[in-house]
Amino acid sequence: MTHSSRRARLSVAIGAAELDAMLVTDLINVRYLSGFTGSAGALLVYADERPAVLATDGRYRTQAARQAPDLQIAIERTGARHLITQAAAAGARRVGFEAHVVTVDGFDALSAATQAEGAVAGADCPVELVRASNTVETLREVKDAGEVALLRRACEVADAALSDLVQRGGLRPGRTEREVRRELEALMLDHGADAASFETIVAAGPNSAIPHHRPTDAVLAAGDFVKIDFGALVAGYHSDMTRTFVLGPPADWQREIYQVVQAAQRAGREALGPGAELRAVDAAARTVIADAGYGETFGHGLGHGVGLRIHEAPGINAAADGTLLAGAVVTVEPGVYLADRGGVRIEDTLVVADTAGQAPDLLTRFPKELTIL
Amino acid sequence: MTHSSRRARLSVAIGAAELDAMLVTDLINVRYLSGFTGSAGALLVYADERPAVLATDGRYRTQAARQAPDLQIAIERTGARHLITQAAAAGARRVGFEAHVVTVDGFDALSAATQAEGAVAGADCPVELVRASNTVETLREVKDAGEVALLRRACEVADAALSDLVQRGGLRPGRTEREVRRELEALMLDHGADAASFETIVAAGPNSAIPHHRPTDAVLAAGDFVKIDFGALVAGYHSDMTRTFVLGPPADWQREIYQVVQAAQRAGREALGPGAELRAVDAAARTVIADAGYGETFGHGLGHGVGLRIHEAPGINAAADGTLLAGAVVTVEPGVYLADRGGVRIEDTLVVADTAGQAPDLLTRFPKELTIL
Repeated sequence: MTHSSRRARLSVAIGAAELDAMLVTDLINVRYLSGFTGSAGALLVYADERPAVLATDGRYRTQAARQAPDLQIAIERTGARHLITQAAAAGARRVGFEAHVVTVDGFDALSAATQAEGAVAGADCPVELVRASNTVETLREVKDAGEVALLRRACEVADAALSDLVQRGGLRPGRTEREVRRELEALMLDHGADAASFETIVAAGPNSAIPHHRPTDAVLAAGDFVKIDFGALVAGYHSDMTRTFVLGPPADWQREIYQVVQAAQRAGREALGPGAELRAVDAAARTVIADAGYGETFGHGLGHGVGLRIHEAPGINAAADGTLLAGAVVTVEPGVYLADRGGVRIEDTLVVADTAGQAPDLLTRFPKELTIL
Repeated sequence: MTHSSRRARLSVAIGAAELDAMLVTDLINVRYLSGFTGSAGALLVYADERPAVLATDGRYRTQAARQAPDLQIAIERTGARHLITQAAAAGARRVGFEAHVVTVDGFDALSAATQAEGAVAGADCPVELVRASNTVETLREVKDAGEVALLRRACEVADAALSDLVQRGGLRPGRTEREVRRELEALMLDHGADAASFETIVAAGPNSAIPHHRPTDAVLAAGDFVKIDFGALVAGYHSDMTRTFVLGPPADWQREIYQVVQAAQRAGREALGPGAELRAVDAAARTVIADAGYGETFGHGLGHGVGLRIHEAPGINAAADGTLLAGAVVTVEPGVYLADRGGVRIEDTLVVADTAGQAPDLLTRFPKELTIL
């Protein structure tokens, strides 16, 4: 069972932090550990062999039993508070909670529940709530085989949709950014996506100089760069890819910045390996852009992890600490943006290899040569 | 300026809570008060006349200046922490924060910022962070004219899309739930929606008995109920409507539960008025269903506020405290669900009138008679 092996990894982390149990309230983390996809739920995982408990409300009785057949299910509207009480009754004394997710008000409610339980049990030492931020996110950083398969599928869907769009002439002068977005998202659904993995960016002409531009009624014109940043969602997993096209023969400045970004992106990909320092990966690409004189225009990080969320650990940027892990799935997406003229970004999603020196597994396979439409 | 008058209302609430300023970190609340729609930002609003400050990062420099021209803009990656420091420097001592939004980790970071400022300024009394949960949400409960206009537009788009779907024969045996969802969402975009306001529910036959069913490849069949719960997003505002159709002549049980829900929904609408107790509005509809013998099957609340979020205050349910406010925009959506057979829900979005006895303004105008397709 995939989910049970994930919970076993979490139990090890819980024990290492000298906790008796952990309360998981982030719904993505709950899904990762249990398979449950409802919109309300919390999970209690013990450091030892005791079975995990999923609390949700009556709407999800059937769904929870079907999606998480190996878990104890508690149908309780109070969710996390119920689980804390249950942990206390089971003798847990130090219970971790997701301090990066639980709000101040939510923490007050959990604290009250621990007090109430102490009162009920007549115990001198109620449950102690211990900050355990990003414990599950750290596990999620390395993808297991099932996750890589879904990410690969999501990237294939995006590749196929973009190929269709180009082949049917979907990128041509006279169309609006919004029309292109809509056609591309429809093509992803045709190819089996559950949805777009985020709001598709289609940015034409000067708009391509805006790193995160929302599609407008701006019309694609001859000579424009058209930058498309998009992805498909498949069974909860997100793909993420950016390609930049040019409509008609490129001007010299367009060809130049495209080549710079292409070289930077290659350098970034080549720097991906287990144990690589995150900021060194960022620097590998950034240096290429800076050396070409465009360093000022590349104002965002090089990449990020991708999985059950479109943005997750690790962040690959100049301020990042830590190293890349084997089996992490990350984007590499440098860009050069010339205000009021246009910009280029090229982005792939890749799996970091198991051994140093081995190339990462490229999941987004649409060509990266400058495509003149 | 709409946004400045909203901030003026907030300043009054801040003063009434004996605060010097309030830090707003919920992005929907930031948008409501400033017009800024970026994905990172925080807002500091003072109790007095001092101008509000919007902090965001470099990606949004241009957008923030354009969307919030009357605000002071601080381009600071540290966002909320920067604003706390600025508030301290401006002499604020008691600063409210959104304890229902700020995480435990986020609160730790804000607290550290107040300490740091105290150290820098050499002051004995650093800023005190005071819980001020739901302060902005309470203001948002009553919609201003601009908001009602956008909600009306969103509801018109949904009405038009559903009319098109029915008129072109989009609801017919042989289609899948997913196909219907996709066509309806495409029609909303055609009519000017920015997006669907949530994941459209299309539930056919026995699936219609599941209150919140995700569309599947289940095929619509003669004799089925088809329940559709959907909405359009227009300039940030959500519409919300449910209609239930029957494919071919209804069976007696179908006609019966439809009539029960229709009568309950009418009773709920008629109970909407300024000053009405929320739980009395719920009871008005629930009693009709209970009296018909289906009380056990109606397991959710009667309705909810709708605006910049699809679900917002007030909740209209049996456990709700408080009363309806004039100018609130709410849904009324009773249902009867017979497991393994089928279910009916009918939902409208309405504006509560200004005076008691005056009918609410119905925004979702698609007919509610049983439509036999």
